[in-house]
Amino acid sequence: MKLRRSERMVVISNYLINNPYKLTSLNTFAEKYEAAKSSISEDIAIIKKAFEESGIGEIETVTGASGGVIFTPGISDEEAKAVIEELRDRLSESNRILPGGYIYLSDLLSTPKILQSVGRIIANAFKGNKIDAVMTVATKGVPLANAVANILNVPFVIVRRDLKITEGSTVSVNYASGSSDRIEKMFLSKRSLKPNSRVLIVDDFLKGGGTISGMVSLLKEFDSTLVGVAVFAENAQEKRDRMTYKSLLKVSEIDVKNNHVKVEIGNIFD
Amino acid sequence: MKLRRSERMVVISNYLINNPYKLTSLNTFAEKYEAAKSSISEDIAIIKKAFEESGIGEIETVTGASGGVIFTPGISDEEAKAVIEELRDRLSESNRILPGGYIYLSDLLSTPKILQSVGRIIANAFKGNKIDAVMTVATKGVPLANAVANILNVPFVIVRRDLKITEGSTVSVNYASGSSDRIEKMFLSKRSLKPNSRVLIVDDFLKGGGTISGMVSLLKEFDSTLVGVAVFAENAQEKRDRMTYKSLLKVSEIDVKNNHVKVEIGNIFD
Repeated sequence: MKLRRSERMVVISNYLINNPYKLTSLNTFAEKYEAAKSSISEDIAIIKKAFEESGIGEIETVTGASGGVIFTPGISDEEAKAVIEELRDRLSESNRILPGGYIYLSDLLSTPKILQSVGRIIANAFKGNKIDAVMTVATKGVPLANAVANILNVPFVIVRRDLKITEGSTVSVNYASGSSDRIEKMFLSKRSLKPNSRVLIVDDFLKGGGTISGMVSLLKEFDSTLVGVAVFAENAQEKRDRMTYKSLLKVSEIDVKNNHVKVEIGNIFD
Repeated sequence: MKLRRSERMVVISNYLINNPYKLTSLNTFAEKYEAAKSSISEDIAIIKKAFEESGIGEIETVTGASGGVIFTPGISDEEAKAVIEELRDRLSESNRILPGGYIYLSDLLSTPKILQSVGRIIANAFKGNKIDAVMTVATKGVPLANAVANILNVPFVIVRRDLKITEGSTVSVNYASGSSDRIEKMFLSKRSLKPNSRVLIVDDFLKGGGTISGMVSLLKEFDSTLVGVAVFAENAQEKRDRMTYKSLLKVSEIDVKNNHVKVEIGNIFD
C-alpha cells in the first residue's frame, strides 16, 4: 500500500500505539508502505518528537541488523496527577460506603477510559524493569491486570480462589484471608505462567496483604520472580507486615456511622 | 502547545485512537495546538483518508455548532478473517483438551494482542447499534467484555455467580446451569447498570445457553434492552433453545479419547 508521507505517519503512529514494547524493523514499514528506508526513518523522527513532546511515550531506535524501533507508552507526571486526583475525588463520594466498611469500586474499575489511564500510570511506575507477565486475583483485579498488561504488551495471569474445571491442572498455596484469622487456598493453572517469568502483581484493594503474600508464594512455585506490587487503593488503617508496593490511592478513614470516607493520594509518586 | 503540522497529525491521531466513539469539536484541537480551525480541518481530512484506506476505522464529521469528529474503530474483513483463522488453529491444538471435554482457553483470553483484535471484531459486528454497556459473567468473560468495551468506549458490567460483600445491593435471577439440570443464581450489583441501557452481552464459551438466558433475564430487571450476544467460541454439539448470537469460533467435535478437537469459523461472517 503506497501512501503519502502524511498518511504514512498517521498509519505508523497507529501501529506503534497498538504495539507497545515491540521491536519492529524499519524494513517492515518500508515494505508495507512501499517507501525508502530513509523516508521511514524520517517519519519515525517526526513521530518520536511528537510523542515525546506531548507525553504519549518514548520511541527508542535500536541500530544494527536486528534493529528497529520500540515504542514505550508514557504518561507525564502532570497528567498522572490529574487522573489520580480525579479518582481521589470520586472515591471520596459518601455513597460509596457499604455496610461493613467496604468501598464500592466496581464502577471505576469497569470504565475503559479510567482503566487505560491507570494502566499507563502503573506501567510507567515500573518503567525500565523487564516484565513478562502481570498477575492478579479474580475477579476484581482482572480489569486492572488487563489494563496494565495492555500497556506492557504481555499476558496477564489470573489466580483464583476457587477451583474451576476449565483451568486444567493447578498449583495451590495457602494464604491468610481477612484479618489473618482464616486460612484459605488460591489456585493457579499450571499452564498459565511459564517458569522463570518476571511478574508484576496488581490488585484493586490492599487490606491486610494476605492475598498479595499468597500470590508471592505462588510465584515461588512457578520458579518466577516478583518485579513489584501495585494496587489501585490501599486501606491505610489496616495493619500489615512490612511489604513494598505502590498505591495510587490511600483510604485513610472510613466512618460508616457518619457516612464519610477520607481518601488521599497513595505512595506512587514517592 | 504549538506543533508543526506533521507532529500535530500524529498527536491528533493518537487522541482519536484513544477516544473512540467520542465526539470532539475541532475547536478543542485548535485551542490545544494553537492552530486555525481550518488547519485542523485539513489535518483531519488526511487522518481520515489514512485511517480509512488502511482499515483502522472511520472518521465522521458532524457539522453545526455542537459538531466535531467521531472516530469509529474498524477492522477489514481480511484482517478479521486472518485473526479468526489463527485462533481456529490455536484452538485446534490437541493439548487444549481437558478431562470432561472442556477446552483450555485462558491463555488466548489473557493475551492483550488477541483480546484487542477480538474486541475490534465483535464491536465491528454490531456497528451502527447504539450500545451503552457490555455485560458478561465472571470470571472468564471479563477480559473479553473489557476488550469490547475498550473499543466501544462504554463501561462493562460483571454479573457474578456468587454474592460479594463489596458489590452492595444486588439483584438476582435464577438460571439453568450446565445441561439445564441445575438451577443456580446469578447476581448483579444494583448500581452497576443504569436503567434503560442498551446492552451487548459477551461470553467466552457458549454451551447450553443458560448463562446467556440468565443475563437476558437480568436485563429485564434493570429495564434494559438486549442489543445482541457475541461469544468467543460455541460448542456446536450442544443442544440449546433457539437464540440469536454471533460466534467467532465453533467447536464442532471434541474427542477426548483420541485427543482431537475440531474447530471451525463461527457465524460472525454470515
